[in-house]
Amino acid sequence: MPRVEVPPFISFLTDFGRDATAPAVCRGVMLGIAPRARIVDLSHAVRPFAVRDGAFLLWSAVPYLPIGVHLAVVDPGVGTRRRPIALRSGRGDILVGPDNGLLRPAAEHLGGTVEARVLENTDLWLAKVSPTFHARDLFAPVAAHLVSGVPLASVGPQVAIDGLVDLVLPSATVRDGGLDTAVLFVDTFGNCRLAGSLPDLEAATGGVTPGRRFAVVVDGHPEPAVVPFEPTFGRVAPGAALLYEDADYAGLALAVNRGSAAEQFGLAVDVGVRIVPA
Amino acid sequence: MPRVEVPPFISFLTDFGRDATAPAVCRGVMLGIAPRARIVDLSHAVRPFAVRDGAFLLWSAVPYLPIGVHLAVVDPGVGTRRRPIALRSGRGDILVGPDNGLLRPAAEHLGGTVEARVLENTDLWLAKVSPTFHARDLFAPVAAHLVSGVPLASVGPQVAIDGLVDLVLPSATVRDGGLDTAVLFVDTFGNCRLAGSLPDLEAATGGVTPGRRFAVVVDGHPEPAVVPFEPTFGRVAPGAALLYEDADYAGLALAVNRGSAAEQFGLAVDVGVRIVPA
Amino acid sequence: MPRVEVPPFISFLTDFGRDATAPAVCRGVMLGIAPRARIVDLSHAVRPFAVRDGAFLLWSAVPYLPIGVHLAVVDPGVGTRRRPIALRSGRGDILVGPDNGLLRPAAEHLGGTVEARVLENTDLWLAKVSPTFHARDLFAPVAAHLVSGVPLASVGPQVAIDGLVDLVLPSATVRDGGLDTAVLFVDTFGNCRLAGSLPDLEAATGGVTPGRRFAVVVDGHPEPAVVPFEPTFGRVAPGAALLYEDADYAGLALAVNRGSAAEQFGLAVDVGVRIVPA
Repeated sequence: MPRVEVPPFISFLTDFGRDATAPAVCRGVMLGIAPRARIVDLSHAVRPFAVRDGAFLLWSAVPYLPIGVHLAVVDPGVGTRRRPIALRSGRGDILVGPDNGLLRPAAEHLGGTVEARVLENTDLWLAKVSPTFHARDLFAPVAAHLVSGVPLASVGPQVAIDGLVDLVLPSATVRDGGLDTAVLFVDTFGNCRLAGSLPDLEAATGGVTPGRRFAVVVDGHPEPAVVPFEPTFGRVAPGAALLYEDADYAGLALAVNRGSAAEQFGLAVDVGVRIVPA
Repeated sequence: MPRVEVPPFISFLTDFGRDATAPAVCRGVMLGIAPRARIVDLSHAVRPFAVRDGAFLLWSAVPYLPIGVHLAVVDPGVGTRRRPIALRSGRGDILVGPDNGLLRPAAEHLGGTVEARVLENTDLWLAKVSPTFHARDLFAPVAAHLVSGVPLASVGPQVAIDGLVDLVLPSATVRDGGLDTAVLFVDTFGNCRLAGSLPDLEAATGGVTPGRRFAVVVDGHPEPAVVPFEPTFGRVAPGAALLYEDADYAGLALAVNRGSAAEQFGLAVDVGVRIVPA
Repeated sequence: MPRVEVPPFISFLTDFGRDATAPAVCRGVMLGIAPRARIVDLSHAVRPFAVRDGAFLLWSAVPYLPIGVHLAVVDPGVGTRRRPIALRSGRGDILVGPDNGLLRPAAEHLGGTVEARVLENTDLWLAKVSPTFHARDLFAPVAAHLVSGVPLASVGPQVAIDGLVDLVLPSATVRDGGLDTAVLFVDTFGNCRLAGSLPDLEAATGGVTPGRRFAVVVDGHPEPAVVPFEPTFGRVAPGAALLYEDADYAGLALAVNRGSAAEQFGLAVDVGVRIVPA
């Protein structure tokens, strides 16, 4: 029996929708191959085809997950020439999914991508592969075989890491007494997770205490908005904005109490934002 | 210790709603009896009391699930004389639920119903059985005992398979250069899964390529609609219809991009549809 | 190796929302510490910050769950001086969460609170604790250590049970040929779970048969409403009220068919209701 390369833990993220039976079907396929796998559904409510959102959610979660296989499928290119891949992270995880950038930020967060392979060994797939349901027929079986002792080298030929589709999430930079940041993710309420952390903002501005006011300058909008940093939404009036530390995604965020910061500030993923003391 | 008849895998489908705690309570009951059971929630978002929808969802999923116990409870007759049953499939699964047709198509998909028993052995139930929560008090405990080594013969007396409530999902027939099919399932978006597969349509019409146009004739509607077969919704304009291969349910489907095919075509479960080349 | 004090079962309830990745992140943290834990998500759809609703849902579910750790986080006071605690129940469970009353009714349902400790042993927490995500950084790790053999005494110093924040759910009383009860919980449809059970109503009124009519008197409303007891909603006209036995929460409830009993009767949690034969 081959050496088990990765513990029998599988995290699972897709854009299939929370009411779909598709994730459960994939779980069934995995448990048929790897009955002892521990599978954690990270999310199946990623916006359909939103590779960038999926990449962010995976990136934000993986540092808290055990070493294992991270199966992620947000795959608008299914059925086209995009490659199915498996990446080994510096920490020892294996990330399985489409080569569209989805897996890259998470792999960076886990010590970097140290090995990349294209899934070509059809012995590890279901016997019949549909043109559009690769999660069930290809990715899930490969993930399950990997936690059952099949070595990563068996999934297919190694490929150059440089040749993979890349996706780099924006980061924050301390500059001239302020923080240059950008929108990482907009949640369903319009709350905007910004690049960087509360310590970054503190380093940039000399300290952040509840109620301290900041000027928020959005790229393309000449007028800055003045917004307090607050620990909770309830500290500002309905319709008013606040900077806060987002608990779910462990970083800086901009919200409007009972409103949408994305709408009020004209924000979307990757839009640049500068924060300076007001 | 009795011979274990079925592996410790349980799939679980109900119409309890995705926000209900009831499925988790049933899981707790099962894990109390069978701590090593692997339980996969197939769906708890079946439309309330929609036995037919539940039967379709179970039927479409089970071929991808490991051999095990399939617990399904969509049970408008709970508290009436409808019988609680367990069916053994040709493949070796055991299906547990109410005798209202819910389990029959899935059992057919797993090699047919080869044995049927009525749940009458109250030793395998919770001590107190409520009049309306048989999932928790009766079905879940029986499912858990079955994966813990209790033989199927213990659940209650064998009954004639012919005497069970039946439910037959429509199938597709190739006829005169077209496909006679019918609506199997309407999802929450109004997309209509039709009986039959893409290969069936190919066999009926001599080949299906992206963009090929078909006349769709709905029973009771004199005017056929002309609809292209497309791999993705985005290939047609908003409001336009397409035939496609549904990934979740592995078969032929009719949809309207950003609209409801059920509304646009007057479709509902079991309505007949004929597809011929346009 | 220390004696294992509690079986490796963890139930998990929060108000994080069903689309959040936060519960999965907590699961990942727990499985990293306790790879063999069986974790059942009880609900993550508790109304935000609704400690009372969370307490009710936990209370109603725990009698059906195996002995284990019950992790519950509805925690409007996170980041303030409210204490993180662990309670041992008379049955042998350990309840982990904030000291805001959330855990108390469930502990009472499991044989009472027999030991209470404040979580102060930071060796059992993640290395870095955020100010607002104690579920991930503090509660989940402690829960996982407890099912891995860490004794309860290790989590922190014992405290007086009398000094805990208490929360007592209303109960029902048979009086003068009627039932004095109150609203325990209002679900998302406006259905109102009342304190007490169908046997309580039978004891109070001499018997309950389908169709029997009762006068429902709501505190502060002079006019009683006459409402039948019915086994199912469909037995009354749309817009009409009924008393029934709620299956999910195993008790007496008041609803309006296709409407909201909370709105129609002006009901909210703790409002008193008296039921007498009409």
